[in-house]
Amino acid sequence: MQLRIPGPTPCPDEVLKAGGRQMINHRGKEFAEMTNRIVPKLKQCFQTKNDVLILTTSGTGGLESAVVNTLSPGDKVLGVSIGFFGERFAECASVYGAQVIPLKYEWGKAAAPDDIKRALKDNPGIKAVMVTHNETSTGVTNPLKEIARVVKDAGKLILVDAVSSLSSIDLPVDEWDLDVVITGSQKGWMVPPGLAFASVSERGWKAQAEAKMPKFYFDYARAKKFAAEGQTPWTPAVAIFFGLDVALDMMLKEGLQNIFARHTRVADKARKWAKAKGMRLVPDEKFASNTVTAVNAPDDMDVSKFLSMLRDEYKVVIAGGQGAMKGKIFRIGHLGFVGEKDMDEVLAAMDKALPKAKKE
Amino acid sequence: MQLRIPGPTPCPDEVLKAGGRQMINHRGKEFAEMTNRIVPKLKQCFQTKNDVLILTTSGTGGLESAVVNTLSPGDKVLGVSIGFFGERFAECASVYGAQVIPLKYEWGKAAAPDDIKRALKDNPGIKAVMVTHNETSTGVTNPLKEIARVVKDAGKLILVDAVSSLSSIDLPVDEWDLDVVITGSQKGWMVPPGLAFASVSERGWKAQAEAKMPKFYFDYARAKKFAAEGQTPWTPAVAIFFGLDVALDMMLKEGLQNIFARHTRVADKARKWAKAKGMRLVPDEKFASNTVTAVNAPDDMDVSKFLSMLRDEYKVVIAGGQGAMKGKIFRIGHLGFVGEKDMDEVLAAMDKALPKAKKE
Repeated sequence: MQLRIPGPTPCPDEVLKAGGRQMINHRGKEFAEMTNRIVPKLKQCFQTKNDVLILTTSGTGGLESAVVNTLSPGDKVLGVSIGFFGERFAECASVYGAQVIPLKYEWGKAAAPDDIKRALKDNPGIKAVMVTHNETSTGVTNPLKEIARVVKDAGKLILVDAVSSLSSIDLPVDEWDLDVVITGSQKGWMVPPGLAFASVSERGWKAQAEAKMPKFYFDYARAKKFAAEGQTPWTPAVAIFFGLDVALDMMLKEGLQNIFARHTRVADKARKWAKAKGMRLVPDEKFASNTVTAVNAPDDMDVSKFLSMLRDEYKVVIAGGQGAMKGKIFRIGHLGFVGEKDMDEVLAAMDKALPKAKKE
Repeated sequence: MQLRIPGPTPCPDEVLKAGGRQMINHRGKEFAEMTNRIVPKLKQCFQTKNDVLILTTSGTGGLESAVVNTLSPGDKVLGVSIGFFGERFAECASVYGAQVIPLKYEWGKAAAPDDIKRALKDNPGIKAVMVTHNETSTGVTNPLKEIARVVKDAGKLILVDAVSSLSSIDLPVDEWDLDVVITGSQKGWMVPPGLAFASVSERGWKAQAEAKMPKFYFDYARAKKFAAEGQTPWTPAVAIFFGLDVALDMMLKEGLQNIFARHTRVADKARKWAKAKGMRLVPDEKFASNTVTAVNAPDDMDVSKFLSMLRDEYKVVIAGGQGAMKGKIFRIGHLGFVGEKDMDEVLAAMDKALPKAKKE
């Protein structure tokens, strides 16, 4: 089976095997030693000296944690949204009482740093900018470096949804001076879903100390206190830690730059295929993601038929569109444990399914 | 290794093996079919026709979900606490703005239904009673049936922390008319930590519709909507679902009443051992838990030495005390995948370690 959705992603055998190890005491020496091995490796992948916290939750819980740990009800935030997940991030902040000023783009577009600069100028009193690095619903990677610069120049906090980018696409947290950055274990990390990771800058911790949104399970201060002992405040998803420990070794052995280059090569294959078939990518190619390729379905394609045929006849699982894009696009996930040979297989299967997936 | 703490608990080989399966699409047919198999089995264990939701979080996140889905800031609740976890549940409600009226008992005691009846009478306007079924920190099982009766007679909601009891100790949710009941996968369920389960009664859903505490990740309404399709709103911990599916089959094959009886037999062994050694149990024996046995350490015992000796020399891992009980008690976890032979091994190791664990 080629599971090529943008998460859960396939795991290497070594990771699966580690995930099947017998349980251990999460308050014991062995667990603490493992956590104390994992965290420095995570920091290498985040390219940061900031704290990196491990939460037992999915990516969305990670995003919620960024919101409730840095903001107070009534705080004004700029919610930059270029798709489904940008909207989710902003919605979460609204639910907790933030005053979200939306900066929305048409699906498929990237956010423009100048627009953010202007929005910050036009709306005095904004505390934080919430932004998606890689928008999984449209296959767009935002120009985060440039966005971060305008946010930092304005002296605001930046909260980043890097769920489907971090460890697959270059994201130097310290160099770009990002305050809270969230990612999820089932994306570029080659492990099953169930953990989210959060890096928190000094400025982030200052905001944490003042933030008045209610938090208990997701409280970073509690997580930090326990992390000092190699522990978590609440019982962690031990089996996923086992897998993560192994996956991180594999990743660091390959090397971050090599991982990024591999993702670029694999994504290039997907993009070239689509163009060769005369299809249009959802994003401008300049902002096309290296972890998920979103393709506008040809007018005569029955997307649902295409997806089921790929799955049932060719053992290739790709994704359809979300929200308003349902039935109009298809998305190939290529992040984490993926190589050029995998993509060749996927594209070969799509070649075969394509002519048989026409609308009736 | 005999891992005999009150969670994480050991998993059967079949469960570990299932947990090591390759990932699948959480929006696909196979996952939905699995969820649609799991939920009815969970309901059997909860002895309920109520909805049972599956959340990717640990037990504490489950408790938080019970709070934020039924209460509004300012709501008056009775926080019944007989130990560490009762305090945690109440603290979580406070953090979210509930007005918690504490009903605290000395550690080791069970809650008295008459006290609750009186507290409800003395404090008009209480909306819900929060209570721990099995207090892991003290090895006490509250008389939940009788407690539920006084709460229901008073027409209040009852929110139950059954993290370390459900599926190991009889807890007929419908018969006792419990509104929200929370448990965690790493306790009696024989699977790794990372999932919490929540049953929600009709009255619970009514409260959910009115509750104004902020919620996003833990929103039961979203979870219910997706559950109708065999899905979860956010990416679930797929690997733990795999294990759970298998574990539930094993449990239902054994039969709930047989599981409860097994836990009683194993716990009896632990209690008899302690008494034969002249030690006192932390709880009154009438309320002694069948999932965790808490024992007052003899005056001349160095608890920390006892625990490390058991672990390092005899490969038996038990727990110490939490909070104020640290250094004063030890706790043997015996829930989930545990039989009499396991307990015999644990007690034999304790026999050997005991004389060597005296204070210097």
